Amino acid sequence: MHELGVVYRNITRADRAAADGLAALGSATVHEAMGRVGLMKPCMRPIYAGALVSGTAVTVLLHPGDNWMMHVVAEQIQPGDIVVAAITAECTDGYFGDLLATSFQAHGARALIIDAGVRDVKTLTEMGFPVWSKVISSKGTIKATVGSVNIPVVCAGMIVNPGDVVVADDDGVVVVPAALAGKTLDAARAREANEGEKRNKLASGILGLDMYNMREPLAKAGLKYID
Amino acid sequence: MHELGVVYRNITRADRAAADGLAALGSATVHEAMGRVGLMKPCMRPIYAGALVSGTAVTVLLHPGDNWMMHVVAEQIQPGDIVVAAITAECTDGYFGDLLATSFQAHGARALIIDAGVRDVKTLTEMGFPVWSKVISSKGTIKATVGSVNIPVVCAGMIVNPGDVVVADDDGVVVVPAALAGKTLDAARAREANEGEKRNKLASGILGLDMYNMREPLAKAGLKYID
Amino acid sequence: MHELGVVYRNITRADRAAADGLAALGSATVHEAMGRVGLMKPCMRPIYAGALVSGTAVTVLLHPGDNWMMHVVAEQIQPGDIVVAAITAECTDGYFGDLLATSFQAHGARALIIDAGVRDVKTLTEMGFPVWSKVISSKGTIKATVGSVNIPVVCAGMIVNPGDVVVADDDGVVVVPAALAGKTLDAARAREANEGEKRNKLASGILGLDMYNMREPLAKAGLKYID
Amino acid sequence: MHELGVVYRNITRADRAAADGLAALGSATVHEAMGRVGLMKPCMRPIYAGALVSGTAVTVLLHPGDNWMMHVVAEQIQPGDIVVAAITAECTDGYFGDLLATSFQAHGARALIIDAGVRDVKTLTEMGFPVWSKVISSKGTIKATVGSVNIPVVCAGMIVNPGDVVVADDDGVVVVPAALAGKTLDAARAREANEGEKRNKLASGILGLDMYNMREPLAKAGLKYID
Amino acid sequence: MHELGVVYRNITRADRAAADGLAALGSATVHEAMGRVGLMKPCMRPIYAGALVSGTAVTVLLHPGDNWMMHVVAEQIQPGDIVVAAITAECTDGYFGDLLATSFQAHGARALIIDAGVRDVKTLTEMGFPVWSKVISSKGTIKATVGSVNIPVVCAGMIVNPGDVVVADDDGVVVVPAALAGKTLDAARAREANEGEKRNKLASGILGLDMYNMREPLAKAGLKYID
Amino acid sequence: MHELGVVYRNITRADRAAADGLAALGSATVHEAMGRVGLMKPCMRPIYAGALVSGTAVTVLLHPGDNWMMHVVAEQIQPGDIVVAAITAECTDGYFGDLLATSFQAHGARALIIDAGVRDVKTLTEMGFPVWSKVISSKGTIKATVGSVNIPVVCAGMIVNPGDVVVADDDGVVVVPAALAGKTLDAARAREANEGEKRNKLASGILGLDMYNMREPLAKAGLKYID
Repeated sequence: MHELGVVYRNITRADRAAADGLAALGSATVHEAMGRVGLMKPCMRPIYAGALVSGTAVTVLLHPGDNWMMHVVAEQIQPGDIVVAAITAECTDGYFGDLLATSFQAHGARALIIDAGVRDVKTLTEMGFPVWSKVISSKGTIKATVGSVNIPVVCAGMIVNPGDVVVADDDGVVVVPAALAGKTLDAARAREANEGEKRNKLASGILGLDMYNMREPLAKAGLKYID
Repeated sequence: MHELGVVYRNITRADRAAADGLAALGSATVHEAMGRVGLMKPCMRPIYAGALVSGTAVTVLLHPGDNWMMHVVAEQIQPGDIVVAAITAECTDGYFGDLLATSFQAHGARALIIDAGVRDVKTLTEMGFPVWSKVISSKGTIKATVGSVNIPVVCAGMIVNPGDVVVADDDGVVVVPAALAGKTLDAARAREANEGEKRNKLASGILGLDMYNMREPLAKAGLKYID
Repeated sequence: MHELGVVYRNITRADRAAADGLAALGSATVHEAMGRVGLMKPCMRPIYAGALVSGTAVTVLLHPGDNWMMHVVAEQIQPGDIVVAAITAECTDGYFGDLLATSFQAHGARALIIDAGVRDVKTLTEMGFPVWSKVISSKGTIKATVGSVNIPVVCAGMIVNPGDVVVADDDGVVVVPAALAGKTLDAARAREANEGEKRNKLASGILGLDMYNMREPLAKAGLKYID
Repeated sequence: MHELGVVYRNITRADRAAADGLAALGSATVHEAMGRVGLMKPCMRPIYAGALVSGTAVTVLLHPGDNWMMHVVAEQIQPGDIVVAAITAECTDGYFGDLLATSFQAHGARALIIDAGVRDVKTLTEMGFPVWSKVISSKGTIKATVGSVNIPVVCAGMIVNPGDVVVADDDGVVVVPAALAGKTLDAARAREANEGEKRNKLASGILGLDMYNMREPLAKAGLKYID
Repeated sequence: MHELGVVYRNITRADRAAADGLAALGSATVHEAMGRVGLMKPCMRPIYAGALVSGTAVTVLLHPGDNWMMHVVAEQIQPGDIVVAAITAECTDGYFGDLLATSFQAHGARALIIDAGVRDVKTLTEMGFPVWSKVISSKGTIKATVGSVNIPVVCAGMIVNPGDVVVADDDGVVVVPAALAGKTLDAARAREANEGEKRNKLASGILGLDMYNMREPLAKAGLKYID
Repeated sequence: MHELGVVYRNITRADRAAADGLAALGSATVHEAMGRVGLMKPCMRPIYAGALVSGTAVTVLLHPGDNWMMHVVAEQIQPGDIVVAAITAECTDGYFGDLLATSFQAHGARALIIDAGVRDVKTLTEMGFPVWSKVISSKGTIKATVGSVNIPVVCAGMIVNPGDVVVADDDGVVVVPAALAGKTLDAARAREANEGEKRNKLASGILGLDMYNMREPLAKAGLKYID
């Protein structure tokens, strides 16, 4: 967040198979598989329901009310990337619209995650280009000050290093460090593997109290039943 | 909100017919019929549009970041109930997802009202299990500290006693004390009875100013027209 | 915002063709065409996605928790108007529902913009009567104190004079002073005229960096690339 | 929160000695002694630093923008009481100023706790009449609609029954149910009894890790040290 | 709020005696004397307690993160003025510090009212130059884009025309249109004239219920006492 | 933010003279000297006015509602350090009070910066131990889950690496990477060197417009004066 005026062209992206595979697990399961870390603040919401993506992060640091670096980061996108945009101060302006989305999409970006505002959401929805942002706003921006591309940034409270994996869906946005992508994918799949069986049991009326053997620890913790 | 570590198994639920009948009136009409009290704060939003439920409250008090008691309350659900979840401090974690929803649904719960976060909203929407919450978040919780079930709680600013009626739709969540359920149903139906006629008059161009005889009291209150 | 108890019956509305024509451009383009002014705060959100309107403002100033003046403003609506409602203090109550919407619609109103809450959103959606508000709430209001109609008001941070043009869509709400409507329409159309060509270029992979000749000014501003 | 238009004249106040004695412990210790329940939301702030009070609650429920019931509750104040004011919907108006404070003080009230706004804070500070509120605002109120006095209310997220003990200081506001006042005073004093010894040890450089024997449980929980 | 790039040099300031005299009444009394209009949002807080000013407004419209126009407005200040600063979009940057305050003070400004952030608050406090702002922030600004001086602006939700009177104290900030300054001063003084007598009565224990003859209207409104 | 259950004992602290020297410059000047980066969000406020510190960061990552790691970080404090505390999710609990402050102070800590709540603020003020936090709350915490010490964390939106310099005062909290501490100190001193002369000029009535030669660039940018 401290280095201004630089674009790192060569970044090490997380393993592609792991980066691609994590989408299917969803942000909640991935977050749990990480030990309950890595989640951006819940103010980050998708512009339309049902979007589900994972990919490798290219990062961009912008100034309040200035989207110049959006054009710079566009050139650094590779297919399978997700652009993660941070701002040097709180700002709700609409940094991104359908023209930039067209450009990002042409270069293979899967989504934008931005700690600010977005606009043209109707067109973006029609294009199927998902954005997670903290606000929707028509407010335009200028192009006057340089920031940076592919430095570590803080987006919605979470550190994102270029090349990290981002997983985003209706529940939120999780960041997986590149070095942990494979291990996290394994852990997330293991978590999900027995969810089907659990769901069937719960659907049949079996209680979590019994399925997870909670009655004894609850009693030990002092829980009392009163008729 | 003060008694920890207890589960009340026998609660007096509001009259079933009244509890079931209030859904059709909607939260706005029920709130008016109560004399404009009973409404939770408007930060409580449904996870999908169009859901409309009423039912009897079973309440649960949880600790921040800890959903252990969700499994305890599941056992106390009876068909026609709505679970109302309060937290001992402000928290936005995702306390509830598709597995717990499967269990709640299996026991006859109609909805969850929670003064915190929820996750797996895509699956919950597909299951048709509505949740009203103040946030959506992947953030998971632990199971370490006991709270209580079926004590009076405060959820989104409103007292909820176990057995009270909860009415929730796109406009918000209203709580009707069990003892007032029948009377409120009558008052709400009376309110709605002449809405059709009013709507027809207004649709024909008749003004509320005339339909409600407001011109004279407005003039008395000092309203002046300037051409 | 200072004159209470008056209704101005004769207001000068913006040129009808300009007022009607601005909808097609959308709030983001109109806001840019104005020089990036005129936008209400982004807390103003539509009750359903996809609504897009423009029209001439009739304004109403109400007191917290009191919607009496909504009936007064209804009489001043002419076809093509949009009602803009301001409150003398912060309030999240539901000032407006399906009955008032029926009346407004009968008199030709295209939308309501309100710096407070709205209710009956499901019915309003079915009626196709769009509302932009900062909250949705069942909370009802009383009819006790007079405000004003067609005075200058502040709605969500923006001055609105009666007769101004309002443009509202999924991205937000923009106010165009009546005297600038025609000029703004021209500027907005000019802006949009070459968007198609730009979009095609960007879709083909041409970068904004090149299309807008940004490389040299970025270098002058000190941007460095690191391999 | 549901009964409108009533004033309960006879309420059972908590034991006076317990109510008076809790102030010296402070809100944090009392809250811990209760098992970490009873705390109002932290948005409740004192109008001046250093105030510290405890007393018995008389409650009042008011409507948004209407302080009529403040005069009604004044008559129900007894020496040693603290007035707790709740509103039927979110409101930031200034319900209370120096004249009402003069009246409250004349009848023996020690403080006001209000889930809304207050004004004349400079004079209130000079009078030494502390108020905990969520906002400071000049915004005046009307006197048009009746609420209730001495019914159970929700103030800043916490249930308050008339006669409960309220403890308020720079750290926040805690509510102790009348029936638990004596027991809580004992528990709070026990908590505080050995604080002096602990403080001396910590001041001498002894670590909480050692004083509380945390090293072993931390290691069991998986904590690792890396040189 | 719509005209960019202009500085109006000749504005009509409110009557000096009225502008100066209103400070002594305070924001709450002035706001009441106006009929409860004119108050900025309560998020506007003074940087130190006890400041109390009134004066004539010179207005400035700035862009997010850009304080260039602060230097332009400095030249338009006359002794007895208060600078009112609005921003074209939400921004929390620190637009103003001790150097600008030195300049403003040298030209006779009494205070700054800004719908954004301020810094150097310790030095400003020592200088006795009061600022009402919505945030305190070290965040600096650039000087790149022109706004306007002495156009009508919206500051914290309230319209301010150049020359209007601003009254600010610990309770908030009120705007009095220039044309109403004298009348408002009279009304405010009349309001305050009998406050001393009321205060004495209330201090002696007489209730507002009796002093204002509220018992009968309360009973008519349905208030019931229960023993 | 991703590594749980580890304590790094050996960290590289920034140059001591630079870390100590930055306090005198203040957060606003340091932030400017860094190129306007490094500032935490302005929600971070000191518990008392006038505190001014700089020092080297030791970092701690805690779980919501759990302050166990505060005791772990205490052991890692060296004289001249400032503890920077981050939480894995949003939380307003009071993690820190007078006992922990006694321990921190005994080991040479100068302050705590915490992205959550603090309590015992009256005693902390008397002790002269400053805390910057986003909330004040009596709400206590448990000791159940391990976090980490001296890993990179995000606190109030800013990355903090162990050993970085933290500068905090009434205006906010700035983070200076350890490697940039000396250079930043030089730049900040250079910035401040000519402030005295500027202040004298401005105090004499010279305008920033002239002192900074802004008239020509403003005219070029299109600013027009209207008499």
